[in-house]
Amino acid sequence: MKNKGLLIVFSGPSGAGKDTILKRLLEKNPNIRLSVSATTRSPRAGETDGKDYYFITKEKFHQMAENGEMLESAGYCGNFYGTPKRPIEQWLSEGFDVILEIEVQGGAQVKEKCPDSVGVFVLPPSLKVLENRLRNRHTESDEVIEKRLAVAQSEILQAVHYDYAVINNTVDQAADEIIHILCAEKHKVQRDNNLIERILNNA
Amino acid sequence: MKNKGLLIVFSGPSGAGKDTILKRLLEKNPNIRLSVSATTRSPRAGETDGKDYYFITKEKFHQMAENGEMLESAGYCGNFYGTPKRPIEQWLSEGFDVILEIEVQGGAQVKEKCPDSVGVFVLPPSLKVLENRLRNRHTESDEVIEKRLAVAQSEILQAVHYDYAVINNTVDQAADEIIHILCAEKHKVQRDNNLIERILNNA
Repeated sequence: MKNKGLLIVFSGPSGAGKDTILKRLLEKNPNIRLSVSATTRSPRAGETDGKDYYFITKEKFHQMAENGEMLESAGYCGNFYGTPKRPIEQWLSEGFDVILEIEVQGGAQVKEKCPDSVGVFVLPPSLKVLENRLRNRHTESDEVIEKRLAVAQSEILQAVHYDYAVINNTVDQAADEIIHILCAEKHKVQRDNNLIERILNNA
Repeated sequence: MKNKGLLIVFSGPSGAGKDTILKRLLEKNPNIRLSVSATTRSPRAGETDGKDYYFITKEKFHQMAENGEMLESAGYCGNFYGTPKRPIEQWLSEGFDVILEIEVQGGAQVKEKCPDSVGVFVLPPSLKVLENRLRNRHTESDEVIEKRLAVAQSEILQAVHYDYAVINNTVDQAADEIIHILCAEKHKVQRDNNLIERILNNA
């Protein structure tokens, strides 16, 4: 029997490099699946239904939320965003590890509903490094950068609500550390109810 | 500032391959130190003081135990065995991870005194595999092997008191899994009190 996969709540301040790390993680570990959120907003150019988001109507969204089919949900600028439970449960039961890239409020909802989920928070090496990375992109004004840094500062404080913190010194190192965290979590005695039985019964 | 090392309580049934795994671990990871026990019994041929054991008198042993200088201790066949605290604390403060290879009663004492220690239990792939390994050595009678298997069976039940279980399918894989466990433990948010402060203050 294949073991159930792990549910990973993956958060971190904007600019910490979450997407790049996830991309590398998926390359390194084929056993990982990324959760796809549902939203009531319209698709933007280039967005694919079922890949970037599940694009659904407000009626459908509320119906799913009322039926308890959303792991977490939130409203933002008049639209709704949420994490459909069913594909996640399917993947977990097939033995895949499922990552939810999600902001901290949603992460807290998931942790409450799924206490055995694993919270991983990505941090920049320092606020100064984050600032340098933002400035070196040359895509945003000083004012925008100042605002993003202020937001990042308050987001970084949320790391205390997570199980693990991974510092993005390099993408490779951060991805490897997350792989090690998943490996360790799978060896937790409390996760494997019939471990001892299997060993003793030569299964 | 170098981070404090981890204290690892390392146990498992006789025949599971603890010593071989430890040897491989030390080869792979130079940041690990093995704790040396103190004993009141006499050195056997080939045993070195400070390497195999600290050989000390009963008076010295009791004095150390009374002064709280033993992390755990036990009597066996008229002699005493214990784990001196001082070298462990020294190594931990220098940033080394320290492994205590210890039976489960001693492990429980350490876990109580040091709740932030990490319990790792080594298991054979199955009781049948353990039996085959013992028989293939051709060094022990059937009767002795039966007795050892009965003891192993009761020891395996103790895995539930540990944080992690590692199955010794191969020595390399078991050693790697322990290295991953140590890596994950070092990324636990709760282990690093001033993590967020460091990030925000650009330390």
